[in-house]
Amino acid sequence: MENRQTRPIGIFDSGVGGLTVMRAIIERMPGEDLIYLGDTARVPYGNRGAETVRCYAVNAAALLERHQIKALVVACNTASAYGLAALRDKLSIPVFGVISPVARRAAILSESGSIAVLGTRGTIRSRAYQRALLELRPELDVHPVACPLLVPLAEEGWLDGTVTQQVLEHYLADLVPTEVDTLILGCTHYPILRDAIAGVTERLLTGPTTLLDSARATAEAVAQKLGDAGLLKETDAEGTRQFLLTDLPEGFVETAERFFGRPLQQECEHVDIVDTTGE
Amino acid sequence: MENRQTRPIGIFDSGVGGLTVMRAIIERMPGEDLIYLGDTARVPYGNRGAETVRCYAVNAAALLERHQIKALVVACNTASAYGLAALRDKLSIPVFGVISPVARRAAILSESGSIAVLGTRGTIRSRAYQRALLELRPELDVHPVACPLLVPLAEEGWLDGTVTQQVLEHYLADLVPTEVDTLILGCTHYPILRDAIAGVTERLLTGPTTLLDSARATAEAVAQKLGDAGLLKETDAEGTRQFLLTDLPEGFVETAERFFGRPLQQECEHVDIVDTTGE
Repeated sequence: MENRQTRPIGIFDSGVGGLTVMRAIIERMPGEDLIYLGDTARVPYGNRGAETVRCYAVNAAALLERHQIKALVVACNTASAYGLAALRDKLSIPVFGVISPVARRAAILSESGSIAVLGTRGTIRSRAYQRALLELRPELDVHPVACPLLVPLAEEGWLDGTVTQQVLEHYLADLVPTEVDTLILGCTHYPILRDAIAGVTERLLTGPTTLLDSARATAEAVAQKLGDAGLLKETDAEGTRQFLLTDLPEGFVETAERFFGRPLQQECEHVDIVDTTGE
Repeated sequence: MENRQTRPIGIFDSGVGGLTVMRAIIERMPGEDLIYLGDTARVPYGNRGAETVRCYAVNAAALLERHQIKALVVACNTASAYGLAALRDKLSIPVFGVISPVARRAAILSESGSIAVLGTRGTIRSRAYQRALLELRPELDVHPVACPLLVPLAEEGWLDGTVTQQVLEHYLADLVPTEVDTLILGCTHYPILRDAIAGVTERLLTGPTTLLDSARATAEAVAQKLGDAGLLKETDAEGTRQFLLTDLPEGFVETAERFFGRPLQQECEHVDIVDTTGE
């Protein structure tokens, strides 16, 4: 039997946000070979219908399967909310979303039982984090906070400064009278705004708060499960990284490197995903 | 021969921005029947390749042609930059873009010969306004200003206040040492930010400046050309309005009404556009 440990891990997102998840996976498991697929031709998924998103996710997974991946990480909140069940039905490899891992950590860590979820309008509307949290601890008090301007601010690199701080103060104002002690960064774009969010949170909220990002929590869940299954590559050598994109807009690499936190080094490769939504 | 004057005018945009153009057309020609087609399933066009945008525009026009339109207004900067020639080749009715009309007004009005163009990153990168202006007055000094955060701010309804002002101050800072006396709002989203842009411009720039928006200039061009061709509907009655959308995301109507400047009244109708990009 072929050695499954040495196969790559596939990571799929609608755009660049998932690169924060890839970065967290590299930090946690530097030896793993990784293939990132960004569906930049169809980004953003947030406003698409559930059936469309499910179809996009299945088509993307089919492309990554041809690269003999040993596990799939759906590093996109919308695709995690709508596509995970369909992917687990279709694939015979472990499939990870970005929602459950961080929800589990938040449910364990919160002492006050009051948790805030920051996300895009689409993610908040899907109630995916709310459902995941209440399934784990039904008595939790969950405060959803839609933060639609954070993705454009992050993509434009406005990571700190008064504009971003004022936008955050606006979004987090409703949390002031609550007992929130745990904030979930429920969008793969938000880890690069972590310092700004921590600063405003500290200034606005009275008690100590914990910021949990889905990128790190997901990387930890992948490491745990692949470790338990004996699927981790045992090596000290740095793994390979590959970047597949369905569109290569100008300026992409600069934005991507902001999320990836390091130079991309490898060329980004253009790929087409078969679109079966109309079938 | 059927009376062509009484046919509707078709207006096409990738999303909601074109509603500012529709609004300007209603103000200029209240009696005209209008059909708006928003390709909300494929928005935003700004980062798509030129060939893809051209194909989307041709498919959208085919759908509007089935409604017997007497003229087509491409109320989208990206589609105007890349699709206009293809549309004029294929259609036998007048086709208007949003770029030439406002470029013509700016080229006539600017006394200093120094003109700023505010637009999305995609529009600025296409150099469509720059080319249009230089074709009209080759000695012009054109200052392109990419303002990527203005579309999300406008869509979220942050039309004034310190955040929007600070973002504008950041974008317009480079114009301070110039002799710019004319600013083109080169994005269909920007008319609803007109007051904020005017305020910051007045504070930052020394001389008097004129703000020109493509919505009003386009409406004027349509009125002129249809009038010259004897194609205007001669009536005192308010025309009918129809809204066709390729996707109906939740919260759409609220955002749309902000751009339209009045209640939509009619239901938005869901339509599918045949996608021939892959053929």
